[in-house]
Amino acid sequence: MRAVDVIRRKRDGDVLDGDAIRAFVAGATDGTWPDYQVSALLMAIVLRGMSLDEASTLTDAMVRSGRRVDLSEFGGVPVDKHSTGGVGDKLSLILAPLAAACGATVPMMSGRGLGHTGGTLDKLESIPGFRTRLSLDETRAVLKKTGCALIGQTEEIAPADRKLYALRDVTGTVESIPLICASILSKKIAEGIGALVMDVKVGRGAFMKTKEDARQLATWLVGIAERNGVRTEAFLTTMDAPLGRAVGNANEVVEAIETLKGRGPKDVEALSVKLAARMLLLAGLAGDDAAAETRVRTALTSGAGLEKFRDIIAAQGGDPRVIDDAARLPQPTSVDMWTATSDGFIREMDAEAVGRAAVALGAGRDRVDAPVDAAAGIDVLAPVGTPVKKGDPVFRLACSNAARLAGARTLLDNAVTYGDEVPAAAPLVLDEIDRRKVS
Amino acid sequence: MRAVDVIRRKRDGDVLDGDAIRAFVAGATDGTWPDYQVSALLMAIVLRGMSLDEASTLTDAMVRSGRRVDLSEFGGVPVDKHSTGGVGDKLSLILAPLAAACGATVPMMSGRGLGHTGGTLDKLESIPGFRTRLSLDETRAVLKKTGCALIGQTEEIAPADRKLYALRDVTGTVESIPLICASILSKKIAEGIGALVMDVKVGRGAFMKTKEDARQLATWLVGIAERNGVRTEAFLTTMDAPLGRAVGNANEVVEAIETLKGRGPKDVEALSVKLAARMLLLAGLAGDDAAAETRVRTALTSGAGLEKFRDIIAAQGGDPRVIDDAARLPQPTSVDMWTATSDGFIREMDAEAVGRAAVALGAGRDRVDAPVDAAAGIDVLAPVGTPVKKGDPVFRLACSNAARLAGARTLLDNAVTYGDEVPAAAPLVLDEIDRRKVS
Repeated sequence: MRAVDVIRRKRDGDVLDGDAIRAFVAGATDGTWPDYQVSALLMAIVLRGMSLDEASTLTDAMVRSGRRVDLSEFGGVPVDKHSTGGVGDKLSLILAPLAAACGATVPMMSGRGLGHTGGTLDKLESIPGFRTRLSLDETRAVLKKTGCALIGQTEEIAPADRKLYALRDVTGTVESIPLICASILSKKIAEGIGALVMDVKVGRGAFMKTKEDARQLATWLVGIAERNGVRTEAFLTTMDAPLGRAVGNANEVVEAIETLKGRGPKDVEALSVKLAARMLLLAGLAGDDAAAETRVRTALTSGAGLEKFRDIIAAQGGDPRVIDDAARLPQPTSVDMWTATSDGFIREMDAEAVGRAAVALGAGRDRVDAPVDAAAGIDVLAPVGTPVKKGDPVFRLACSNAARLAGARTLLDNAVTYGDEVPAAAPLVLDEIDRRKVS
Repeated sequence: MRAVDVIRRKRDGDVLDGDAIRAFVAGATDGTWPDYQVSALLMAIVLRGMSLDEASTLTDAMVRSGRRVDLSEFGGVPVDKHSTGGVGDKLSLILAPLAAACGATVPMMSGRGLGHTGGTLDKLESIPGFRTRLSLDETRAVLKKTGCALIGQTEEIAPADRKLYALRDVTGTVESIPLICASILSKKIAEGIGALVMDVKVGRGAFMKTKEDARQLATWLVGIAERNGVRTEAFLTTMDAPLGRAVGNANEVVEAIETLKGRGPKDVEALSVKLAARMLLLAGLAGDDAAAETRVRTALTSGAGLEKFRDIIAAQGGDPRVIDDAARLPQPTSVDMWTATSDGFIREMDAEAVGRAAVALGAGRDRVDAPVDAAAGIDVLAPVGTPVKKGDPVFRLACSNAARLAGARTLLDNAVTYGDEVPAAAPLVLDEIDRRKVS
């Protein structure tokens, strides 16, 4: 099959058959399709779209470009959660131990922060000694010991995705629902899961700005994952303001630990329980939502989730004493306050602006290969709904390089609006996509 | 300006400004835009389109990627004709000498055959010694001597077009009106013309299969050329059956010479006169169509056109004796006849099938760098409208390699249909695009 013929078919709006899609993925991965042909087809896919079946086949071909982990020795249904990316989103650090404490097998492969959104790997690596680059054999050993492994993508997993993503990044072909879904799901499916909970963020701090766009993405994710044999459901959750109080790395680990101790922010706790419960349900570890949620709450209040996190940290080479002593995490050398510019209730807090300010402090990166400052970040002292007087502290800025403070402060200057009344509480979960309702 | 930003703008359907278009053409030509970015933008242009202004700017940028010849020393308005490609289309060999004999300056840069359509350069090179690869200085000398030069594209002319065309060919991005127009016109404009007659072929032997598609292409060609300061008009002409009787190379030269002697097929003579007359009109060498046509007919009947062709051949190193002695042209070693399979009038003759059969004989090529057999070709012995009996010869097949005959014969097997009555004569010119009516 000639590459140019495949490109022409998609250009003309045809549906590509499995042979064509597999030829594309194999050719892109092994280089027999030159980059200029790959990028021409990517642009044709962006503008002509793909059917759900085409996107499912694309995902499958990308999974097969590398190794698909076999976790059958663990029995049951391995389950994972994936978020499309938010600000202050440390949920993985909480719900993975909670689900594992309830008996789930959680082989969680996460990414790094990019742009204004943070990444689970960067947060975990703020724990001294914690290793996220495990081989598949090491991952298996950690899973056997704790029921959970928190790792980064390995070379063996979906190499087609790395190749395609690098090209998409420089050819304006990132923004495509089928391509986004195939990228996310090929990595998740390859890690050996049988069930998946998707957290699709909506709002000005999210990739998807509107509920309609988020629902479309979520529906595609569920449809494609189901076609690939993974039981999947999706939540649409709010990402207008940061989630919880901490935005950064070490400070988010602290907030995750506090949440596992039952002392976390309400939004973080509620969403962690909700998503972990759905993980149990899809993994067949509970009969219905209520039973699943009861089980997760018990793991939370009993401290079983906290102890599980301690075990995971130890199993992956980290210092488990951070659980009891937050001072063992990286500490900032420079701290500053951003104070309210007006009296009133905090009405809105722009998650994207807070995320960008955290990046400016060194907590994130704008290039995939840049390092991060584990101690850098922002603590929200006055979240949405808090009454403030002009001059009251709203944000605490922390980092290891005082020169970064000024730039971060400037980015926060338009992040907050004030109101005369307590703002109406925004719902955390906006909608959910039921797998039985996606064909 | 970052390449990815230009790509994203076109992907999203925006109009690209001059800076963006010039950055693209410069980057593609000098390699600072990698091929994968160039091809992504080409695909976005194919699917999102371009405005007439964008396409005009693209054409201008492609002209400026190389040298634009200055022919002002010749005075008047240098004029050329360009055909979108047909089967048996030897008009350039006739109308260029005719227009030059009427006082026009004709710097005609032509191409080679590709696929089922022939190319003027291949035909000219069947004349022993004829050189089509002239430097710009040599071209100028030939123009000074004869008023006409029949040459191939040089390295200095529109290098951006060579680069872009090579990529378009392998990325499914050939089929785009703006890209096609920019490719054709950048080369024409760079050769220093002030006027241009476009012959847009329509029918099953042409690139454009329908009159609507051909009219759209013709309108764009006129609009873009006019915006670039070249007086341009276009004819839509029939290309269902081959033009004239000869399809090949040396045999087409013979037919061109016969036409200049006043003994050519009626369709070839009529269209040559029509297009040459329009060249004179646009070049300001005649006041109206009738005067222009009278002047061209006089050049034909007086033999001035024939003598001009003799001079051009001599000036470009060819053997001018071919004018009087066709046996000096390459002669085939293998000849075969394809005979009528039914009684009746020849109703239709599929130009594309005849063109493909000629390629199979060696007269054309499917790869740009393949050589051609100058002696190979097909002579139509019974054109459309001829009454035949089963077994009467319809095509004469000729070539230098007998092994090629069988394959060519097979390609002709469905090329002809028969009818019980004389078919209605098809008009040669279907429509024309008046420059004053294109905004």
